[in-house]
Amino acid sequence: MAKAAEDRRMSKKAYEARLPDVRAALVRMQVELKSANFPVILIIAGVEASGKGDVVNILNGWLDPRGFETFALHEPTDEERDRPPMWRYWRTLPPAGRMAIYAGGWHTDALNDDPRSARELELFDASLRRISLFEGQLAAAGALIIKVWLNLSKVAQRSRLRTLESDPRTAWRVKPEDWKSHRDYERLTRLSERMRAATHQPGAPWYVVNAEDTRTRNLSVAEILLSRFRLHLKAQQRTRRSGAALKRTAPLRPAGLRRLLSLSLESKLAQASYEKKRDKWLGRLNAAVRAAGQERRSIVWVFEGWDAAGKGGAIRRLTDAIDARDFRVIPVAKPTDEEKSHHYLWRFWRHVPRAGMVTIYDRSWYGRVLVERLEGFATDAEWRRAYRELNEFERELTEHGVIVIKFWLHISKEEQLKRFRDREATTYKRHKMGHEDWRNRRKWSSYEVAVGDMLSLTNSRFAPWHLVAANTKRHARLEIIKTSCRQIETALGL
Amino acid sequence: MAKAAEDRRMSKKAYEARLPDVRAALVRMQVELKSANFPVILIIAGVEASGKGDVVNILNGWLDPRGFETFALHEPTDEERDRPPMWRYWRTLPPAGRMAIYAGGWHTDALNDDPRSARELELFDASLRRISLFEGQLAAAGALIIKVWLNLSKVAQRSRLRTLESDPRTAWRVKPEDWKSHRDYERLTRLSERMRAATHQPGAPWYVVNAEDTRTRNLSVAEILLSRFRLHLKAQQRTRRSGAALKRTAPLRPAGLRRLLSLSLESKLAQASYEKKRDKWLGRLNAAVRAAGQERRSIVWVFEGWDAAGKGGAIRRLTDAIDARDFRVIPVAKPTDEEKSHHYLWRFWRHVPRAGMVTIYDRSWYGRVLVERLEGFATDAEWRRAYRELNEFERELTEHGVIVIKFWLHISKEEQLKRFRDREATTYKRHKMGHEDWRNRRKWSSYEVAVGDMLSLTNSRFAPWHLVAANTKRHARLEIIKTSCRQIETALGL
Repeated sequence: MAKAAEDRRMSKKAYEARLPDVRAALVRMQVELKSANFPVILIIAGVEASGKGDVVNILNGWLDPRGFETFALHEPTDEERDRPPMWRYWRTLPPAGRMAIYAGGWHTDALNDDPRSARELELFDASLRRISLFEGQLAAAGALIIKVWLNLSKVAQRSRLRTLESDPRTAWRVKPEDWKSHRDYERLTRLSERMRAATHQPGAPWYVVNAEDTRTRNLSVAEILLSRFRLHLKAQQRTRRSGAALKRTAPLRPAGLRRLLSLSLESKLAQASYEKKRDKWLGRLNAAVRAAGQERRSIVWVFEGWDAAGKGGAIRRLTDAIDARDFRVIPVAKPTDEEKSHHYLWRFWRHVPRAGMVTIYDRSWYGRVLVERLEGFATDAEWRRAYRELNEFERELTEHGVIVIKFWLHISKEEQLKRFRDREATTYKRHKMGHEDWRNRRKWSSYEVAVGDMLSLTNSRFAPWHLVAANTKRHARLEIIKTSCRQIETALGL
Repeated sequence: MAKAAEDRRMSKKAYEARLPDVRAALVRMQVELKSANFPVILIIAGVEASGKGDVVNILNGWLDPRGFETFALHEPTDEERDRPPMWRYWRTLPPAGRMAIYAGGWHTDALNDDPRSARELELFDASLRRISLFEGQLAAAGALIIKVWLNLSKVAQRSRLRTLESDPRTAWRVKPEDWKSHRDYERLTRLSERMRAATHQPGAPWYVVNAEDTRTRNLSVAEILLSRFRLHLKAQQRTRRSGAALKRTAPLRPAGLRRLLSLSLESKLAQASYEKKRDKWLGRLNAAVRAAGQERRSIVWVFEGWDAAGKGGAIRRLTDAIDARDFRVIPVAKPTDEEKSHHYLWRFWRHVPRAGMVTIYDRSWYGRVLVERLEGFATDAEWRRAYRELNEFERELTEHGVIVIKFWLHISKEEQLKRFRDREATTYKRHKMGHEDWRNRRKWSSYEVAVGDMLSLTNSRFAPWHLVAANTKRHARLEIIKTSCRQIETALGL
């Protein structure tokens, strides 16, 4: 038996003969990656004692350390625990042109929860679903994701652990938990199979590598990396983005557009009556936001709307009710070059609030299905799949307890014109106007279609859209305060 | 007495008459700030019950919330505790064109340590020194720093606390500590005076505002902000950077250049003898790095040197001895646009390792006194003061226990030519060559002067320069491993 195993092993000589080619190919890969428009994500996972750390160290020796980073499993920091589970992974993602190697990573984190009861298994499956969506999003945006599972039979695992223990230089690496996990081999194998099945998908497949022979193992990992990279590079070069903007815009789902167009925009509200009501509701909102903070629930406000619809003013009224130390306002403009080299959601993940804090987005991730859709900054496939991605993003937030409140501020085309002219005529408002405002205005009806689709396709139960008639500023502001207040109270069960 | 105080108070009517002008001026300021090339840092500190939070909230109501952020004092997170004390402040700094308001901030943190013993006071003074250097650096780079201290007499403090307690809506704001600090009024006043004296400097002065009358207090803070902004904007417009590169380069301190030129570059080392020694020292280095990690000491390596001096290869040999999960290599190239809108040290602060981890910088902050000096990217004043700033930066790291190991890899001009030609002739090395390499080479003697100054002016006791003869790669690599090993062992007292 030992003899047979011996036969399957690669000799040191054969191994060393292969090394120069493999290493040269890895260096070439790194040079090509530098100018590629995608990142590489390599995950090394596997059973105990299969040598995950060794493989990562060996790859580190073969690769140029300046082109990639290695991340190891660590306990979440308090900043990470205070945010949705995937936040800690988003923050480590490499930009285009670079590689990250994960010794373990998100799958290993999920397995380490060691689910046993039915309830725990349910949470485990929920983590796997999140992981699968996460990887699906990255892959769809062009990332090369390579997931390697290092396998060992139970017999081989025992002999590996014994070998490590018998050498004084490596004995410290064997911990009591390792033997415990060895005794539990069958159950853990079933768990990891469940994990792989749930997270295996096009663009993010699993490669199971037999880790019994360390030399074969090392070369296999390098070869998987090299061949996937080569295929991916070719595929990406074929699918260069067109960049051409759409000529005509047809709604994906007309219901949203109907909802938008049927909104009654006029409404009167006397100054005195407004101020009284506003102050009452601001007081109630202040109490609701403080109650959320005490329960360590975060609040995310999303403000979208036509240019000059009054987003800024509405945000100011809102923040009057919140302690300045508890909120941040994030004005969303063009992405920085650092942001551009990441997945489009990365820059929003960056600013997700800590538990109990408030973030107000002045424009948001919905730019993907509005300006990026209409100006051709996103390809057809990109903005079409974005609706699902945005729903997933908000679902992750709300599942973690974040309260997501979304407003579309709606005004008529005539009202916009009036406000543009007023801005141009008023010294201290003139800075608000740019030629982009006039350009966007000319595309009003295309925007209507995109807004309608957005309202319809991202109007989820957990993060519904509130459509606000904003021709009358007072009415809109009061409406926003009231609606926000009610949504927070409902979320808190008040 | 009560009557006299009443007389000093601003009437509600007078206050409200002033508000529209102040608010309009603040909005104009924010518009102008958007296109300014500096950030605004506003710190609101003061005695208990002076209304720091109220002032911050009022400013928040007056300003457009999209142009600034508010930061409140919080307990350091574990990610912050794991790094030098100023790291948590660096990460909150606003970029050029934006403002940050600190409710409390670094001075308040230092005061909250409530130093009493001689030893504690010594640590307090050390914090104040760090703060003063920090603010001095930011101010020198053009930041507008406004520090407001809200003062209350002991009598006024007592009456404020009582008023707060007597109203059921505000009673919760008075905590037992507030009364304790009231009883300790005189000592705390002496401490805060000591703090202000130690951190008052040109570019970052303190403004003491009497907070007895809240309306006067609010207007005073706004007016200080407005007038400092106006003056600063004018001053910055006058000192537009010239951008012209220096014609001739004279050494600031010839000793460094002499040290550089007197280095003997040739040295022989047989392959067999090299490998044996290298493996011995790599083993020792591995043990030293692990020992540092166990003591939660971080290590920062800085690699500087001529183009083609072998930095990359040296880093690879070094990382062979370190577990891939414990180090990061940061290749330093052109700053991103996000980095460019901050202080030049911000992008290095970003990557400071957590306790027990290793960061290797392939090129570093020394670009400020090398390429930026020679290409005119930094003004004369900027690169001249950088030597002190770089020393301060490294001192903060080493004071926190970080081990800083700096190498200059030195080769002769002839050796560089040989290596350039070799690179151009070898397929898999060609990507390493750019026209910048040839351009830098033509400036060899200017670079020699800059390197000499750097070696001389930033060769501190806590972070010395190691000058490595690198014409022979084997020699250089071994030297780097040995020197690193010794410096770590010495730092750990091994």
